[in-house]
Amino acid sequence: MSDAEMAASVTLRSMAEIAERAGIPQDALIPYGRHAAKIDVARLGELDASDEPEASVVLVTAISPTPAGEGKTTVTIGLADGLRRTGSNAMVALREPSMGPVFGMKGGATGGGRAQVAPMDAINLHFTGDFHAITSAHNLLCALIDNHLHHGNELDLDPRTITLRRALDVNDRSLRQVVNGLGGRASGVPRETGFEITVATETMAAFCLAADLEDLTERLGRIIIGRTHDGEERTVADLGEQGAQGAMAVVLKDAVLPNLVQTLEATPAVVHGGPFANIAHGANSIIALNTARRLADVVVTEAGFGADLGAEKFMQITGPTAGAMPNAVVVVATVRALKFNGGMGLATLNDPGTAGLEEHLAALEAGVVNLGRHVENMQRFGAPVVVAINRFTQDDDAELAWLQDWCRDQGVACAVTEVWAHGGAGAEELAGHVRAALEQGRTAEGLFTPETGARERIERIVTEIYGGAGVEYSALAARQLADLEAAGEDRVPVCMAKTPYSFSDDPARMGAPEGFTVSIRELRRRPGAGFLVALTGQILTMPGLPRRPAADGMSVVDGQISGLS
Amino acid sequence: MSDAEMAASVTLRSMAEIAERAGIPQDALIPYGRHAAKIDVARLGELDASDEPEASVVLVTAISPTPAGEGKTTVTIGLADGLRRTGSNAMVALREPSMGPVFGMKGGATGGGRAQVAPMDAINLHFTGDFHAITSAHNLLCALIDNHLHHGNELDLDPRTITLRRALDVNDRSLRQVVNGLGGRASGVPRETGFEITVATETMAAFCLAADLEDLTERLGRIIIGRTHDGEERTVADLGEQGAQGAMAVVLKDAVLPNLVQTLEATPAVVHGGPFANIAHGANSIIALNTARRLADVVVTEAGFGADLGAEKFMQITGPTAGAMPNAVVVVATVRALKFNGGMGLATLNDPGTAGLEEHLAALEAGVVNLGRHVENMQRFGAPVVVAINRFTQDDDAELAWLQDWCRDQGVACAVTEVWAHGGAGAEELAGHVRAALEQGRTAEGLFTPETGARERIERIVTEIYGGAGVEYSALAARQLADLEAAGEDRVPVCMAKTPYSFSDDPARMGAPEGFTVSIRELRRRPGAGFLVALTGQILTMPGLPRRPAADGMSVVDGQISGLS
Repeated sequence: MSDAEMAASVTLRSMAEIAERAGIPQDALIPYGRHAAKIDVARLGELDASDEPEASVVLVTAISPTPAGEGKTTVTIGLADGLRRTGSNAMVALREPSMGPVFGMKGGATGGGRAQVAPMDAINLHFTGDFHAITSAHNLLCALIDNHLHHGNELDLDPRTITLRRALDVNDRSLRQVVNGLGGRASGVPRETGFEITVATETMAAFCLAADLEDLTERLGRIIIGRTHDGEERTVADLGEQGAQGAMAVVLKDAVLPNLVQTLEATPAVVHGGPFANIAHGANSIIALNTARRLADVVVTEAGFGADLGAEKFMQITGPTAGAMPNAVVVVATVRALKFNGGMGLATLNDPGTAGLEEHLAALEAGVVNLGRHVENMQRFGAPVVVAINRFTQDDDAELAWLQDWCRDQGVACAVTEVWAHGGAGAEELAGHVRAALEQGRTAEGLFTPETGARERIERIVTEIYGGAGVEYSALAARQLADLEAAGEDRVPVCMAKTPYSFSDDPARMGAPEGFTVSIRELRRRPGAGFLVALTGQILTMPGLPRRPAADGMSVVDGQISGLS
Repeated sequence: MSDAEMAASVTLRSMAEIAERAGIPQDALIPYGRHAAKIDVARLGELDASDEPEASVVLVTAISPTPAGEGKTTVTIGLADGLRRTGSNAMVALREPSMGPVFGMKGGATGGGRAQVAPMDAINLHFTGDFHAITSAHNLLCALIDNHLHHGNELDLDPRTITLRRALDVNDRSLRQVVNGLGGRASGVPRETGFEITVATETMAAFCLAADLEDLTERLGRIIIGRTHDGEERTVADLGEQGAQGAMAVVLKDAVLPNLVQTLEATPAVVHGGPFANIAHGANSIIALNTARRLADVVVTEAGFGADLGAEKFMQITGPTAGAMPNAVVVVATVRALKFNGGMGLATLNDPGTAGLEEHLAALEAGVVNLGRHVENMQRFGAPVVVAINRFTQDDDAELAWLQDWCRDQGVACAVTEVWAHGGAGAEELAGHVRAALEQGRTAEGLFTPETGARERIERIVTEIYGGAGVEYSALAARQLADLEAAGEDRVPVCMAKTPYSFSDDPARMGAPEGFTVSIRELRRRPGAGFLVALTGQILTMPGLPRRPAADGMSVVDGQISGLS
């Protein structure tokens, strides 16, 4: 069965029943379609009149992503189902998928097999309209900026310094670099600009890091739009009489409410927000995380890409901002992906019989260093770490046994999961390990204090997390860092924009490379998000479509979507 | 009270109750927020197993729009409320507002005072996401086209001939004309293009003229994307192996379902689709119109701009496509707007005491010719015509009496409405006239047969409806028309893209000008919509924001939107 067929074969519960399972009063449910709802958080009031939410947080992360696939979202969902099956009041918090990649080649991002959140077609497409609202708010801001230039440019903005780009939630490489404002006096001021995919915008990052709409409005007001001809920075709050953040908040008013859906096993799931994990921090919204923490005893959440990116940022950015550091970390690995890290090609992985078991085990042994470094890194933050070996049908028992032995040797808890095939039932052993980990009562701590400067943060992330030898700054980045230090503006979290495919900044170096230097090309202030982005190499913020995009096979037949995976 | 305060003062009924009032089974209701729902039309099946919907259609149109305001939407809503109050099973069908103008200066488009559809803030913003879905489907198509150029251009498209422009639902003049695909080989093929506001796209027009999703998919497949270097036309259906219309249908699958809301007097309202009334046909979707016709006995609907544009197009395009021609036509006029047509300036209109009654009556008499020609035009289609004089507080009784006398002299039924102040109670007399008109059992007929060619259609619209002397074609338009005639492709409805402010193509010529020639600058084939657009003069398809946009005063205070009117 395909993921879509599997999802269609399950009769979903009513939202009233899911709300009841989650402990949400019915009048706090705002329905969006038959099987999705927004949670009117103001009506959860009485639940936490006493104090802060106290649920445990389980962060699911993974080894470095490879084309072989890891199934991190699938394990996240299956683990929540497994925890619930074995008696924990668990919920899952996930990012909303971007529509762009759905029509490219990635497919959806709602898990797979029996471990899915549903309804998968709605969630993968418009869902409750949050990304559309973010796109609209962001483009309204951009229109207001160009309108300001057109009507006399009272702020004296230098059009060449406007770094904010428009946004669309579509994979459209031909919008990366455009000249707008052409067509004469009546049609604006010509300037070079471009578009980002919605998930790459600072508006999205601010949305996901905001505590509520009020905090979001203030964050939006801090977004830098450019500089005056004298070099003075101007922000969203400087536009017009009252700034543009109020109108953006009007557009985002309903979008900030977290979305409730269900897994195929009827576990309540909060799916909300979805920033990039390189140029941004790659976690679901803090509003979603903290809403789930008010409702459940255990919240399972996921961070984007491998643990060097998503989980590191969760520890340094998301968790501290939310006031919710992980109490356990699950690192997802697959035999396939580790063998890929160990140098085995996709052709052999897809047709394992073309190599002997010894060759497979050798590749596994060569690649396991990637898992090893990710596990060590996560242990450094102080919460217990569990490895989930996400079983694929091609995996050989000997390989799984070898990998379990390896974990035992490292002293790290480990379970084989079969969530795709069996849902929560395939994650019961993992759920047991996670529960045991939570019983240790430990909480992760970030490596830095709020006073730690960007230079030290970057240096330590590169050496302590990536395992590199040091940092090299471009002339531009060096000057930017010195300026920030001089202004005392460097004491903020750093969001590393690095390739996810390697610990280093060279995507070709898999496994656990050593001795490398990471080059920082440029720093970008993101005060709306509250962090500083450090760019290593070229990070694309607008993907393209492949030669044969997934869109080409899609249609609606008898009211059902066909070709969406 | 402001419109927003008035709307907030009314306790809305539950959607279950509105559905019951409309005769919609509860399981055909798909909720979107607390006070809006999509109607799952497939579950209305049993209602019309017998035959075609038989409800009467009342088309509300108006005199030529002026800055003085007419209140056409307000009268449309008030009339439906008035019909219901006086015993008719009436519903109202309206266009969805575009978000762009909401942040410019137009404000919302949900009526006013006691004659509003609600919830006004939701309807004016994202509502059920239909416009976002249309924007997304359209931009996915545009991304697929540029992706095709990037990956080798198998179709041999000449990039200079691609007339399809991207879309955003925002007023952003600086996107009118752009060069995209800059930034080198990896970022597409550079070409000149631009953006339209979503309501101006052919995707929107096709959406609103489609009978259902299947018909829409076929229409989308027919949209012309450009020409090969050999001059051969290529359509959406030619893109990729299966065309792009299937993926667009996936994006539009839920959007095609019509939206149910309520007036402040709990009259069921279907609000769905919203094409421009110049470059397109300016009426709510046919799906909405025909859904309302299956449910109610009388459906009150509205056409954009004055009767020379919206109503003429309803008679020639919307009605025939829907199989639903009007059984009565209401022409909305105001004393203020007629005096403006008669040459009185806004300063005097806003401060009537600065002129004597005689001066006011002279202006009214000079301007009433505008109403006269619109009424005559509507009578030409064969359904009874009623004039609604929408009373403004500044109107003098003597002016109202003069205008009523004038209607009596013309032999046209007429009622003064006070819907803003009194809702349906202010439209009971109008409702009585409309019911009497419907009792005549007449149905409007278009002026043309399906075989009538574009040249004759344009000629007769200009001379018989606009009252002009004739048509002048630019060299380009003349060649285009000759080509269409030679290919036998001119036998389609013509959608006139003309200024709404005058019967002529010169916006400055108010009243009822005569002896003018209308210049056709260009013809554009729109096979997805099913019509040919005839452009007179320059029609902007992407509006701009004013110097002080409405966005500047907006914010969310204590969870309530402030500054949205």
